[in-house]
Amino acid sequence: MNTIMIWVPVIMALIGLSFMFLKRAWVLKQDAGDGKMASISDYIYEGALAFLKAEYRLLAVFVLFASIVLAGITFLPGVKTHLLIVVAFVIGAFFSALAGNMGMKIATKTNVRTTQAARSSLSQALKVSFGGGTVMGLGVAGLAVLGLTSFFIFFYHFFMGGTWTSIEDMTVVLETLAGFSLGAESIALFARVGGGIYTKAADVGADLVGKVEAGIPEDDPRNPATIADNVGDNVGDVAGMGADLFGSYVATVLAAMVLGNYVIKDMGGNIQDAFGGIGPILLPMSIAGFGILFSIIGTLLVKITDDNAKEAQVQKALNKGNWVAIILTAISCFFLVQYMLPQSMRMEFFGEGSQEISSMRVFYATIIGLIVGGVISSVTEYYTGLGTKPVMAIVQKSSTGAGTNVIAGLATGMVSTFPTVLLFAIAIWSSYALAGFYGVALAASAMMATTAMQLAIDAFGPISDNAGGIAEMSELPKEVRTRTDILDSVGNTTAATGKGFAIASAALTSLALFAAYVTFTGIDGINIFKAPVLAMLFVGGMIPVVFSALAMNSVGKAAMDMVYEVRRQFKEIPGIMEGTAKPEYAKCVAISTKAALREMMLPGVLTIGFPITIVLLGKLVYGDNNQLIAEMLGGYMAGVTVSGVLWAVFQNNAGGAWDNAKKSFEAGVMINGEMTYKGSDAHKAAVTGDTVGDPFKDTSGPSMNILIKLSCLIGLVIAPILGNGSHTMLDKHSNMMEMESCHHGGQMMGHCDMTKCATMTKEECAKMCDSLHCTPEEKEACLSCYDANGKFVPPTSGKKSCCAHKK
Amino acid sequence: MNTIMIWVPVIMALIGLSFMFLKRAWVLKQDAGDGKMASISDYIYEGALAFLKAEYRLLAVFVLFASIVLAGITFLPGVKTHLLIVVAFVIGAFFSALAGNMGMKIATKTNVRTTQAARSSLSQALKVSFGGGTVMGLGVAGLAVLGLTSFFIFFYHFFMGGTWTSIEDMTVVLETLAGFSLGAESIALFARVGGGIYTKAADVGADLVGKVEAGIPEDDPRNPATIADNVGDNVGDVAGMGADLFGSYVATVLAAMVLGNYVIKDMGGNIQDAFGGIGPILLPMSIAGFGILFSIIGTLLVKITDDNAKEAQVQKALNKGNWVAIILTAISCFFLVQYMLPQSMRMEFFGEGSQEISSMRVFYATIIGLIVGGVISSVTEYYTGLGTKPVMAIVQKSSTGAGTNVIAGLATGMVSTFPTVLLFAIAIWSSYALAGFYGVALAASAMMATTAMQLAIDAFGPISDNAGGIAEMSELPKEVRTRTDILDSVGNTTAATGKGFAIASAALTSLALFAAYVTFTGIDGINIFKAPVLAMLFVGGMIPVVFSALAMNSVGKAAMDMVYEVRRQFKEIPGIMEGTAKPEYAKCVAISTKAALREMMLPGVLTIGFPITIVLLGKLVYGDNNQLIAEMLGGYMAGVTVSGVLWAVFQNNAGGAWDNAKKSFEAGVMINGEMTYKGSDAHKAAVTGDTVGDPFKDTSGPSMNILIKLSCLIGLVIAPILGNGSHTMLDKHSNMMEMESCHHGGQMMGHCDMTKCATMTKEECAKMCDSLHCTPEEKEACLSCYDANGKFVPPTSGKKSCCAHKK
Repeated sequence: MNTIMIWVPVIMALIGLSFMFLKRAWVLKQDAGDGKMASISDYIYEGALAFLKAEYRLLAVFVLFASIVLAGITFLPGVKTHLLIVVAFVIGAFFSALAGNMGMKIATKTNVRTTQAARSSLSQALKVSFGGGTVMGLGVAGLAVLGLTSFFIFFYHFFMGGTWTSIEDMTVVLETLAGFSLGAESIALFARVGGGIYTKAADVGADLVGKVEAGIPEDDPRNPATIADNVGDNVGDVAGMGADLFGSYVATVLAAMVLGNYVIKDMGGNIQDAFGGIGPILLPMSIAGFGILFSIIGTLLVKITDDNAKEAQVQKALNKGNWVAIILTAISCFFLVQYMLPQSMRMEFFGEGSQEISSMRVFYATIIGLIVGGVISSVTEYYTGLGTKPVMAIVQKSSTGAGTNVIAGLATGMVSTFPTVLLFAIAIWSSYALAGFYGVALAASAMMATTAMQLAIDAFGPISDNAGGIAEMSELPKEVRTRTDILDSVGNTTAATGKGFAIASAALTSLALFAAYVTFTGIDGINIFKAPVLAMLFVGGMIPVVFSALAMNSVGKAAMDMVYEVRRQFKEIPGIMEGTAKPEYAKCVAISTKAALREMMLPGVLTIGFPITIVLLGKLVYGDNNQLIAEMLGGYMAGVTVSGVLWAVFQNNAGGAWDNAKKSFEAGVMINGEMTYKGSDAHKAAVTGDTVGDPFKDTSGPSMNILIKLSCLIGLVIAPILGNGSHTMLDKHSNMMEMESCHHGGQMMGHCDMTKCATMTKEECAKMCDSLHCTPEEKEACLSCYDANGKFVPPTSGKKSCCAHKK
Repeated sequence: MNTIMIWVPVIMALIGLSFMFLKRAWVLKQDAGDGKMASISDYIYEGALAFLKAEYRLLAVFVLFASIVLAGITFLPGVKTHLLIVVAFVIGAFFSALAGNMGMKIATKTNVRTTQAARSSLSQALKVSFGGGTVMGLGVAGLAVLGLTSFFIFFYHFFMGGTWTSIEDMTVVLETLAGFSLGAESIALFARVGGGIYTKAADVGADLVGKVEAGIPEDDPRNPATIADNVGDNVGDVAGMGADLFGSYVATVLAAMVLGNYVIKDMGGNIQDAFGGIGPILLPMSIAGFGILFSIIGTLLVKITDDNAKEAQVQKALNKGNWVAIILTAISCFFLVQYMLPQSMRMEFFGEGSQEISSMRVFYATIIGLIVGGVISSVTEYYTGLGTKPVMAIVQKSSTGAGTNVIAGLATGMVSTFPTVLLFAIAIWSSYALAGFYGVALAASAMMATTAMQLAIDAFGPISDNAGGIAEMSELPKEVRTRTDILDSVGNTTAATGKGFAIASAALTSLALFAAYVTFTGIDGINIFKAPVLAMLFVGGMIPVVFSALAMNSVGKAAMDMVYEVRRQFKEIPGIMEGTAKPEYAKCVAISTKAALREMMLPGVLTIGFPITIVLLGKLVYGDNNQLIAEMLGGYMAGVTVSGVLWAVFQNNAGGAWDNAKKSFEAGVMINGEMTYKGSDAHKAAVTGDTVGDPFKDTSGPSMNILIKLSCLIGLVIAPILGNGSHTMLDKHSNMMEMESCHHGGQMMGHCDMTKCATMTKEECAKMCDSLHCTPEEKEACLSCYDANGKFVPPTSGKKSCCAHKK
């Protein structure tokens, strides 16, 4: 027995965290610059910390409250979920917060060091800023893998004594583990939504009064909201994104584990492999573990030597590191799948019967996941990148005014759902065709394996953005700003593609969670031909739309708060505009903080409250018909996922396209044969489009990721309440479910049920078994029902085996 | 036998059409004014006719092509659809076109007569304009009911000899009848999309060059595009809306008939009522027929006496007529349900077993439909009406620029999906809970019963709008324009609520079609836990988004064509601006026509092509597994419906809200304590929002109705190809499906399948039958399997009846 494999992910996580600490020490050792730079950086650091502190206070209350509810659920009659789920939940929440906190701390420490490094060279500036990103990435990935696998090992020993006992016991292990994921995702919701509102409120507020009313440039230290604006970059893009991917990472691996358990069930409930019989469950954790290792290798490759490098070279360096990490992950998937899975596996394909598949098909599924991760970035790049056809079309439409610019941007975002959704649909279908929902979950796991690398690339953007801001505010020489601008510009591209990656991962994760939900509840599917289920599909579809609207409105309200405060300071503090008096930065930070926290409540309540309401309503109307209630909740989850993915892609890409359409004017664009620049009417129209796009791409769009994952996770945690719905219902009425060996996976389809043979000859029965892909055992059970004369003798009543009379 | 009832709807339709002709004669007899007015009116009339002619030429090609495909389908092996479906299809298309044509002709004749009437009094103007609307409404409703019921009677005699034979024969009748609905809806697609593009291209084009560049007012005869603009109102709002509701009306009644046949099936396949055994099928037709009668009564009540009346009185008069029609319909539903349905009915509720319900529950379902129709109007009114909270919020946001105005409008549209979708969800769930999907379909039928009245109210808006335009162009005294403005203003409100009604009817119709689809294919549900089905749910969800984007882009392109033409005329024809030379109106009309026809192709291809592609793809991958392919198509339909409803509500309401936010400035609004008027910066921002909203509310938004209905209808017509999927598949393998009497509604759930009793004692079997709500026949069939000693004797192989050995 090679049960040592269970420890491998933990070891990898610890290696990742060790490397992270080394890198962190190196970054912090770098020169933090002179007095003015340091003081500005300190303002940002303190502002960010102030926000986190206020947020955590609020979240602590939420976690406490949610824990009580969760604990209450475990005491409900018939629910097998263990009270330990509360511990997992709290620690999951804590880990997620810790990862965000660590990332933000390092980001706000790295920014000023990047500015300082940019004084000497671009390559050094990249090294420092990407170093900070690496710390963030490895911190998130390391904590995710460490937390999840440690809890798994603990629960595996606690509930099963560290050895395979049964599918049911493993289900309890994984149900309890779901608490960890739920905790992480709950924090992510608030971090993403709160962070998104914060960053845009500060940005819009600072711009409206500073740029427009007072006529001072961006990042001008005279603007009281400028620090809040820079804090916002960290709060939204660093902490928000970190918590988002932390949640995706954990949820994906968890879902794959649940489906791994289901694979074992399909294969008879006991596979006796070299890994204590849990190979399919260990595999996703192992892929995640090795992914950390390869991410470290990838980050080491990100460097440039030419100090006159431009955006292209920097982008190339990032791409190199990224692709090496991805390719190494692909190779490791090949060996891990070969090593850890039985060569041949039996899987249930709904509507097509059970099939014997080679484990290599699981490997192919992981390749699909990696490809989707890559292709989605290209698609995002195509619709949002500088100089692409769609973005240039928006630029052209700016010449006829803001209205046509806005229409073009909306249409671009909407059209971009076409290739994206087709890509997802193909990915779902093909990875499922290869290896069932286990294949879908492993595709997602492979994609997420290089999360550390993805996050490093993502986080380096806002760090560079901040570095540029500090250079501006500290009035450093122009070449410093030029260097940070190169990094910032690359960072904008990686921000857009990173959003593509995040939604792709969220989509696949949600599907995996959705599949895990169905297996947890033990229902035989989600039939949208049942009207209550269909109604919930509608309701689910509506939630992301309303959620987005709430987030957008929140940005507007919070921005107005900021506007009033900045106006007040300009009026009440004499000398600000002359630079003789200091603005009260902290007050603006406090305003943004307060507004963000206030405004994130309603969307949060909506997300968490709706699934619970549906279950309560279902219980009220249908009482014990858990099958139907579970399907209703499943319909809701599907609605949220489908609609959420659409609105995420729509909003992210429209926002990105508007942003770059506006940026195009900086270098000048040709419109109707005339070069048009900043300050033209067309440019003003483009600025309007960008204003609309800002909350799209930084607040409501990215929030969709969390919304869909969290909705599915809540379903998963509620699942045990609705557990084995169909069985319970039928058990009451008859003992027909006792013919266990004839029933496959608890399905009601009855394909391999030998009572069907009652009207057939033995030969016909055998033919039916073959054509329905019954297992050899099932076929044997069916054929044993015929006596010597080929006559069908019905199984005796009340016996476990349907053909007990022959024994 | 009271089979005369089959002729009642035909008689009602003929009464409606007769009244229509009387009204038409009266309208045409009215004074059409003097030379200038008449000539302008003629321009509009000819422009509208030119568009229709060009459109019909194109549609004739389409109908020919589609007929060949449809005919090809009927020759496919295993497809039972009769070639007569092609005839039904062609006539359906013809009737829809005829209805649109008639409506548009009368509308373009009524406009100038309304202007003339407005010279004498407001009450007379209302009488004339509403008279034109009535002609339109009754024409559409009369043709719809006449066409559908005539074909039904014909097919009923052709396939069944005019007497009940079997469920299967009636299914053939209804499958063939679906051709009529498909024809109508196909034309509606092009009419709605083409009309929507036409109207906005002309509107935006006329405004951009006329108002903005040349600085001349709206409806100025010097603007070459002004006639095209007025033609657009008729093409989009009259012909488009007419074809849309014609399609909904037919599709709703058809779906209810299909589900009525299913009710008969659930009740044992032969109900022997006083209506030749087809009461449940006749009921929806009868409700539609009586609806025409009550609509006539309603239209007679719409009048005002006070000539100094304002908007409120006019609105009140319309509401009075509308509510009387609705209440009379509700009362007739009570008597019709009591008269035509068996007192007690047995229905299958998926996941809950079969239930015995009182027919009064069907009546309650119709009441739900009528309530939804009313409430949806109030909800739409709340989000889009002048002076409501959401609209005033958009007005306030205009003060900080176009960007914040656009965000507020988008958010308002998005938030408005919340009550709307909840309302739909409650309607679906409750009408289903009352009387299954038959209840859902009858709720839709009841709602649609007053279509004639709804359309009269709808069509009166653009007629008044045109009347105002003619008054302006003919330079009539100011009081004339004031009177038409009052009517126009009321028309704007009814246009918004009419859109709410249209999407509500489309949503319920689609659900009914969806249910009909499932019964036609004979599948046991649509299980989104199957990955290919889930993938198609995603793809379906994406279609409305991409469709909307295409429509929006089309408006942009077509508007630019118009801009270039108007600019050319201003440049090349001297004296236009001085009023000494006439612009070439016809050229602008031709430009709009050409652009609209060109741009409607791609969305059309998308709508029709995708479902067909899915079936072909499914066949390629899954071969004969028709059950799975049918579920994939079903998943697609559900995705289109859910997403389409959301995007329709979002776009319609956002567009309506922006429109009225802009209009608020005409009377002046209080912003930050200051009265703000037209021409202010805030007003300009509001104009930008309205520009974005125009294609939303007049092109892409209303197109969603057709998109979702047509997608579901195509599925319904394809259904026979995938027909009885599960049966076909299983028939090959075994003869177990021969136990017909034991199978319930062709389901595979097998609840009442007596082979389940093989493992039970007789007593246990009886208990199971009771708890699963088996019918008495089913229970008897099950119990007959036990011999005198209570031993279960399996049914003999190959026999029709499962317990043939006993007979």
